[in-house]
Amino acid sequence: MEANVFVNEYERIDDLRLGGLRIIQNPEWFCFGIDSVLLSNFSKVKRGDLIVEFGTGTGIIPLLLAGKTPVGKIKAFEIQEEVAQMAARSVEMNGLTDRIEIISDSLENAHNYVGKSNVDVVITNPPYFKANGGIKSENDVKMVSRHEVHCTLDSIISSATSILKPGGSFFMVHRPDRLVDIIWNMKKCGLEPKEIRFVQPSIYKAPNILLIKGVRGGGSELRFHKPLIVYKENGEFSDEIFEIYKNERIEVFEG
Amino acid sequence: MEANVFVNEYERIDDLRLGGLRIIQNPEWFCFGIDSVLLSNFSKVKRGDLIVEFGTGTGIIPLLLAGKTPVGKIKAFEIQEEVAQMAARSVEMNGLTDRIEIISDSLENAHNYVGKSNVDVVITNPPYFKANGGIKSENDVKMVSRHEVHCTLDSIISSATSILKPGGSFFMVHRPDRLVDIIWNMKKCGLEPKEIRFVQPSIYKAPNILLIKGVRGGGSELRFHKPLIVYKENGEFSDEIFEIYKNERIEVFEG
Repeated sequence: MEANVFVNEYERIDDLRLGGLRIIQNPEWFCFGIDSVLLSNFSKVKRGDLIVEFGTGTGIIPLLLAGKTPVGKIKAFEIQEEVAQMAARSVEMNGLTDRIEIISDSLENAHNYVGKSNVDVVITNPPYFKANGGIKSENDVKMVSRHEVHCTLDSIISSATSILKPGGSFFMVHRPDRLVDIIWNMKKCGLEPKEIRFVQPSIYKAPNILLIKGVRGGGSELRFHKPLIVYKENGEFSDEIFEIYKNERIEVFEG
Repeated sequence: MEANVFVNEYERIDDLRLGGLRIIQNPEWFCFGIDSVLLSNFSKVKRGDLIVEFGTGTGIIPLLLAGKTPVGKIKAFEIQEEVAQMAARSVEMNGLTDRIEIISDSLENAHNYVGKSNVDVVITNPPYFKANGGIKSENDVKMVSRHEVHCTLDSIISSATSILKPGGSFFMVHRPDRLVDIIWNMKKCGLEPKEIRFVQPSIYKAPNILLIKGVRGGGSELRFHKPLIVYKENGEFSDEIFEIYKNERIEVFEG
């Protein structure tokens, strides 16, 4: 049941154009981008699946999954408490508290909430950049969301593997220039990379987004998808992007 | 100095259209393909470099490097003696015995010929397929050239690393579906993947060829090139392929 929730004056509410779903965002922190939309589209989930998301931010991925698929059990972790509270308000606003739970805790503690070797699918859009010692504040929301302050590729992948059932799936969006670290860490944990899709700004440009699927304990067989091209030569969205976004283009709903 | 060499009746001589260079090939075994041409184009070599190639086959890569670059020291290994002899005849025919040496020995023994930690560049176009127990004969030239009978990804990469200088470069062409094994084995040996280029049959198809550069002891920083597209939508070679092939399209020279 949809509920009226508190919205701060510096927040905005955007319409996801997906069965009336709406999301609260704070433009000072970040707003969701194409990465989340592509990741939710790349992730394959089934009705009865127990799904965990690491680093949910605004809660965009659980909202998109709830809007586009019949999945009913999504546990989304967000270490930053104020961000988690905002995501939880979006869930409540859309009347989705029976399907989506936002948990403000470290992903290393995820097994305390969902058990070990028990999850069907883990999805994550993690911080893309190494911390590299240049972090000024662990409380800087924008910084924490983009840099590996509270988690690293290693901890994300090992935590994901430990809660996944054997045969369970892992879907991640990341940057192509981290591919070596990603494959190394996945193999090390027994999370076999099975599918890769690169996203290119245009047909003539190098990929700038990587979508990867792993399977816990899977055999070594890797499938490459054809690249996903974002823009046509005339600057318009490609047909495939248009199809993905058709029901997901956001519209500012309320100041 | 060019020399007249023995050519078997089942062999043919092809003109490389590269300063008059020619190559002896046995169509019953295999003829060189686009992979070798793209690999020689992707490999960066300097005048004084000591270069080693693993699995030279017809000797196409040393011949292309000799024709297109000023490099003067290329040691090319080929485990199959009859294949190595054919390659050596091509080298002799082109008067390149002072620049190219064909060595018929296992790549695990390469350090006996070139020393350890002494080589500037290793180049390889190895067998693409796992042996998987289905190998009928170790003497089947076509089979040995395509399957990991006498060498595996692991042995190729560890042998390459052991002869490379710290900071030396490794260039390989392979199939995208082996990428996970390739990255895993390179990282394990301390051969850091630094550049990747995928080759696609067309802009709408998944990549079917992988070009990868590694650096012994390199830092973890991976660069993706834009994809190399082979055919335009009208079925003609793309401009880039045309440019690469311009001087390398072969022509049958002699029965």
